Amino acid sequence: MESNKRPGGRSARVRDAVRQATLAELAEHGYRGLTVENVAERSGVHKTTVYRRWGSVAGLISDALELAREEPWPIPDTGSIEGDLRGIVQLVRSGFDDPELGPVSSAFVAAAVQDPDAARALHEFFTARHEQSAEVVRRAVARGELPDVVDVREVIRVAVAPVYYRLFVAHEPVTERDADRAADAALAAARAGVL
Amino acid sequence: MESNKRPGGRSARVRDAVRQATLAELAEHGYRGLTVENVAERSGVHKTTVYRRWGSVAGLISDALELAREEPWPIPDTGSIEGDLRGIVQLVRSGFDDPELGPVSSAFVAAAVQDPDAARALHEFFTARHEQSAEVVRRAVARGELPDVVDVREVIRVAVAPVYYRLFVAHEPVTERDADRAADAALAAARAGVL
Repeated sequence: MESNKRPGGRSARVRDAVRQATLAELAEHGYRGLTVENVAERSGVHKTTVYRRWGSVAGLISDALELAREEPWPIPDTGSIEGDLRGIVQLVRSGFDDPELGPVSSAFVAAAVQDPDAARALHEFFTARHEQSAEVVRRAVARGELPDVVDVREVIRVAVAPVYYRLFVAHEPVTERDADRAADAALAAARAGVL
Repeated sequence: MESNKRPGGRSARVRDAVRQATLAELAEHGYRGLTVENVAERSGVHKTTVYRRWGSVAGLISDALELAREEPWPIPDTGSIEGDLRGIVQLVRSGFDDPELGPVSSAFVAAAVQDPDAARALHEFFTARHEQSAEVVRRAVARGELPDVVDVREVIRVAVAPVYYRLFVAHEPVTERDADRAADAALAAARAGVL
């Protein structure tokens, strides 16, 4: 008496298989190499089903992004805002450097600049990510390290932005020092009351 | 006795026509709508010639970027580093808001996350742009507004990065206030000796 719609039922298993296959295909072949056919074959789900439920490559990416959004993001807790912010920016940097995770994350960015559905999904992803990461700024305010008028999400944006800017706009390498400096710059601005 | 290779000769005129046509097509149809066929038709240059000399859409974009790189970029000179940095970040913001320029600039970013040749061309473009913009920071150092150890290009990167991050990564709107705040944050970091 299994329902197709029940969480954990057949429908959910199909969805999970397709999302995992999308992530694996992105890791191996990137956004340009992603096809509905390959995802169908890898997931063992019929191509017609994938087309009907996900529509296109952009639909697959949007759904995989939803899965990525639900995954825990290990917010650092070093005891100081300097350490926490540096930790977050280094996580971003090392994530793109990771041979498995890097291509997937880059594929999400590439898809979103091409396709409005993927852009909406990536926007949701970053909204969640900013909200989670802002916890380190809230803790700093509670400890008296930063003024309580600080825009907690904007501190996160300003801290991570230079890493993304180098990777996806100026196409420059990002060193560990670049990442630390980006974190320190956001912190200096927050301390100065600009953010 | 006109040479095909001489600047201003037939070859240069063909190149200019193709580059202008590429920019016009990008403005109208964006990166996804750019085709060698449309550029050939618009420029009045034979399709075979365009394929032979530019190879592909990525080749067309890389060449158009070279043209964009040569165009003067109106570096502000307001008399203060605060005004100059805000001016630069507002130029970036309003450029993407511009109905003609915006789609072209967005197309460059989109092409570069897809294609290594376009990425190299965009890298060159931003290297030139950073170098030109850094002049406002050098002037500030000369006026004694900033310490002379400041990394002049990094101040520019940190100032503009949040605008690009919102537009092309988090897919969020960018207000004038967001742009001013990004400029002010970079300046606060530079003043604190972080950059």
